[in-house]
Amino acid sequence: MSVVVGQAPLLIKVHPLDNVAIVANDGGLPAGTTLPGGLALVEAVPQGHKVALVDFAPGDAVMRYNVVVGYAAQALPRGSWVNERVTTMPTAPELDDKLPIATRKGEALPPLEGYTFEGYRNADGTVGTRNILAISTTVQCVQGVVEHAVRRIREEMLPRYPNVDDVVGIEHTYGCGVAIDAPGAAVPIRTLHNISRNPNFGGTTMVVSLGCEKLQPDRLLAPRAIPIRAGEGMPGADAVETIVLQDEANVGFQSMIDSIMQTAERHLQKLNARKRETCPISDLVVGVQCGGSDAFSGVTANPALGFAVDLLVRGGAAVMFSENTEVRDGIDQLTARAATPEVAEALVREMAWYDAYLERGRADRSANTTPGNKKGGLSNIVEKAMGSIVKSGTTPITGVLSPGDRLAQKGLIFAATPASDFICGTLQLAAGMTLHVFTTGRGTPYGLAQVPVVKVATRSDLARRWHDLMDVNAGRIATGEATIEDVGWELFHLMLDVASGRKQTCAEKLKLHNALALFNPGPVT
Amino acid sequence: MSVVVGQAPLLIKVHPLDNVAIVANDGGLPAGTTLPGGLALVEAVPQGHKVALVDFAPGDAVMRYNVVVGYAAQALPRGSWVNERVTTMPTAPELDDKLPIATRKGEALPPLEGYTFEGYRNADGTVGTRNILAISTTVQCVQGVVEHAVRRIREEMLPRYPNVDDVVGIEHTYGCGVAIDAPGAAVPIRTLHNISRNPNFGGTTMVVSLGCEKLQPDRLLAPRAIPIRAGEGMPGADAVETIVLQDEANVGFQSMIDSIMQTAERHLQKLNARKRETCPISDLVVGVQCGGSDAFSGVTANPALGFAVDLLVRGGAAVMFSENTEVRDGIDQLTARAATPEVAEALVREMAWYDAYLERGRADRSANTTPGNKKGGLSNIVEKAMGSIVKSGTTPITGVLSPGDRLAQKGLIFAATPASDFICGTLQLAAGMTLHVFTTGRGTPYGLAQVPVVKVATRSDLARRWHDLMDVNAGRIATGEATIEDVGWELFHLMLDVASGRKQTCAEKLKLHNALALFNPGPVT
Ligand SMILES: [Ca+2]
Ligand SMILES: [Ca+2]
Ligand SMILES: [Ca+2]
Ligand SMILES: [Ca+2]
Ligand SMILES: [Ca+2]
Repeated sequence: MSVVVGQAPLLIKVHPLDNVAIVANDGGLPAGTTLPGGLALVEAVPQGHKVALVDFAPGDAVMRYNVVVGYAAQALPRGSWVNERVTTMPTAPELDDKLPIATRKGEALPPLEGYTFEGYRNADGTVGTRNILAISTTVQCVQGVVEHAVRRIREEMLPRYPNVDDVVGIEHTYGCGVAIDAPGAAVPIRTLHNISRNPNFGGTTMVVSLGCEKLQPDRLLAPRAIPIRAGEGMPGADAVETIVLQDEANVGFQSMIDSIMQTAERHLQKLNARKRETCPISDLVVGVQCGGSDAFSGVTANPALGFAVDLLVRGGAAVMFSENTEVRDGIDQLTARAATPEVAEALVREMAWYDAYLERGRADRSANTTPGNKKGGLSNIVEKAMGSIVKSGTTPITGVLSPGDRLAQKGLIFAATPASDFICGTLQLAAGMTLHVFTTGRGTPYGLAQVPVVKVATRSDLARRWHDLMDVNAGRIATGEATIEDVGWELFHLMLDVASGRKQTCAEKLKLHNALALFNPGPVT
Repeated sequence: MSVVVGQAPLLIKVHPLDNVAIVANDGGLPAGTTLPGGLALVEAVPQGHKVALVDFAPGDAVMRYNVVVGYAAQALPRGSWVNERVTTMPTAPELDDKLPIATRKGEALPPLEGYTFEGYRNADGTVGTRNILAISTTVQCVQGVVEHAVRRIREEMLPRYPNVDDVVGIEHTYGCGVAIDAPGAAVPIRTLHNISRNPNFGGTTMVVSLGCEKLQPDRLLAPRAIPIRAGEGMPGADAVETIVLQDEANVGFQSMIDSIMQTAERHLQKLNARKRETCPISDLVVGVQCGGSDAFSGVTANPALGFAVDLLVRGGAAVMFSENTEVRDGIDQLTARAATPEVAEALVREMAWYDAYLERGRADRSANTTPGNKKGGLSNIVEKAMGSIVKSGTTPITGVLSPGDRLAQKGLIFAATPASDFICGTLQLAAGMTLHVFTTGRGTPYGLAQVPVVKVATRSDLARRWHDLMDVNAGRIATGEATIEDVGWELFHLMLDVASGRKQTCAEKLKLHNALALFNPGPVT
């Protein structure tokens, strides 16, 4: 990307082969403005909107991100405003055999060595970035009791276990009053199962169950039980521990709280013995997503994140990108980037599944877009998708994950999820994410109690205004104060500091946590 | 209903024409037990389960509540255990013109006069049972900030407003990342809109919005804005107050918290001026439901609740019963009880809509029953439905409400909702419920922050064991210690005490609250 910095005119061109660039100036630029290089604007162009860098004939492809984001609907001389009224949208790629399959054989980036972080290694080889006691629940019925117990554990017990960061109830609205044998039910069930196995929870699992719920503990813990490795002097700690509120042993509310706290004590002892150790960055599992996007998402925060993602992948880490409706129109880009035909097939399979899901609800991926997108300069969903995909960097896609599944490989992974910030975060958590990076243009106080969330602002004014809510300011890229590479490296180093516990994110400092939101494609009953 | 009390064997037969009875004894009865009348058990029968009172040939109807709840799948001699493995389920009544329409013209119950409660009357005529500051939210993004603000308001401001019971954030997972123009979206939107208007919130509405979410404040508050009646000396309190976190005015986290707390202060001043006054029980809006049902639900707690519901309806109150999948198999009973053909048509319309909803998700009403139900002796959804419907009492059904709509009439109303405890409670809250009654056999610590929840145990051993979680013990009906009428009157009086604030429910005392759970029939994106 080249940033053209003048006294006034600021233009951003993402890829050398692009034939449009974006106006970065607050308030846009007036007609007649002479751009660096001599190009003069033939009309006013608003901030975030595209300027023609070449003469377009009708039908010529408009290239951004080195991708066709539209076609000129009329002649557009150099210096014209290129918007949705003077372009036509590429048709959405069909999910058929015309898709390019694993065709983009760029030169491989060299491995990145010498970077480490301090993590909590678990018996199964996974590595956590935080040391958290998670109390899983089978059903929402137990929520009030679990919240009470969590509060007391945090206040009365946690101070005695200084190596444990927090205690978190894994609360949700699933577990009963749902069609648990419907085809869609597998998704929320495996999501909850896999969240209980997140590396940040140290492999110790305790579950609070009501007793009569549909999602019985055995079913939550299937397909395979989660063994707790026996610790020294901890009898009974060699299996998952489940507290069932309806058990005869529980007489009254206080007895339920006592049962939970006694079990928690054993788990806290085990967790407190964990120590951080130096780990290669290949032990990181990072999930990336965006929310509250604006025109700068695709030119500042997302490219910088993409650069950092490339560093992580070159270092051997697992990085997930997601958000089905934001990549659907770029599916041909993804299948081309697939490392193997099998990966491309899996990408198509997930897109087709989601197309059908939306169709059942009589919606489609256009439900993703907002009037604000076009106002902000995004001509169509293709252009929006390109700005979202750019955060995945440039490496081949080496794996695809279905919603709620657990990741078991390294490299760049497409984890299929809805774009909803909370559902995406919840599903990446189930996949085993231990660090979350979130880019935002409009701003969101988003946080998760289970993993640190690093938030990246696309614009400097947001970063300034939300000074204690934004971890990184990528807006400096638009003004030429920093390059994509600068911010990418800064983000990369911050990720290692946060993963190591040397730094806390803004959301961690303020204890800002959003509720988990399960993806349940099945009906409630 | 006849209760057969012996030294040991306790059998309950609901209707004289029933050919099965329920074992009431703790621990069930062993094989060989001789029952009053000479019948001997041919096998052990667990508590709550059915005993054959006659010899069944394959295909013979199993009668309970004078209704066919199943057919013998094999020969079942007298004294056999009749359970889901040896019976088949009746098919659901078709939603066609064979349904009886408003046919049950029983004699009307006499009006009930002379009962009142102490409530908070609002400017629009509705009456609250609690005095709560509700902070509505447009989107889950704001949750962390709102929770922080609510905690501080509760700790720092509430002590200065002694007439205000609590401050509650109306948090939910809707608002963005959803197909907001899909046909199903109207349900969660109107639910959130109507919850903000619940009578317990005193007609003062404050909303926290992020700014860029799909569910904009205007849309949340449509179709008509909710005016705040101007209070004395409260400038600016004549409109809904909305705090938008992305507003330029908010610089940093603390500024967001300050904005919310300053607005809350004005609303607390207004709420603090509310006083309880004596109101007729016709000002009550009661929602009833059950959860964690067992075989005793239909013979103890639900009939007692049904008796209390009759008292309320006779006194002119509005009472809602719900839970589509639990009444679907008894739809012919409901259409027969409809006060008018229009009400019957509305019942059929809601059932047909829900049948289609389940079918889209490839589920059906049989998805309702839980492992706990079957363990508790309920063979199938038909048997469960009969036991569930009995809590609606005996009066004609005078209205039908679609999910999320607000109730605007008195009498016995079928409020169509899923049976999920939390979704049903949330939808009844939107309807304007100010008091919730919840019957349970297996036990649940269920509570809501917005309205008091009175919990009724179906069995004495549950009531004893969960002594501080169950408000009423209907189990005494099974043992002959109390009649349905006794417990019904006790429940009725407790409801008036709780509504008046003279008594707190168990869940209130323990501050046990479950999250709201929206019914969203549309897709997420
Ligand atoms: Ca996004
Ligand atoms: Ca997102
Ligand atoms: Ca109170
Ligand atoms: Ca029920
Ligand atoms: Ca229920």
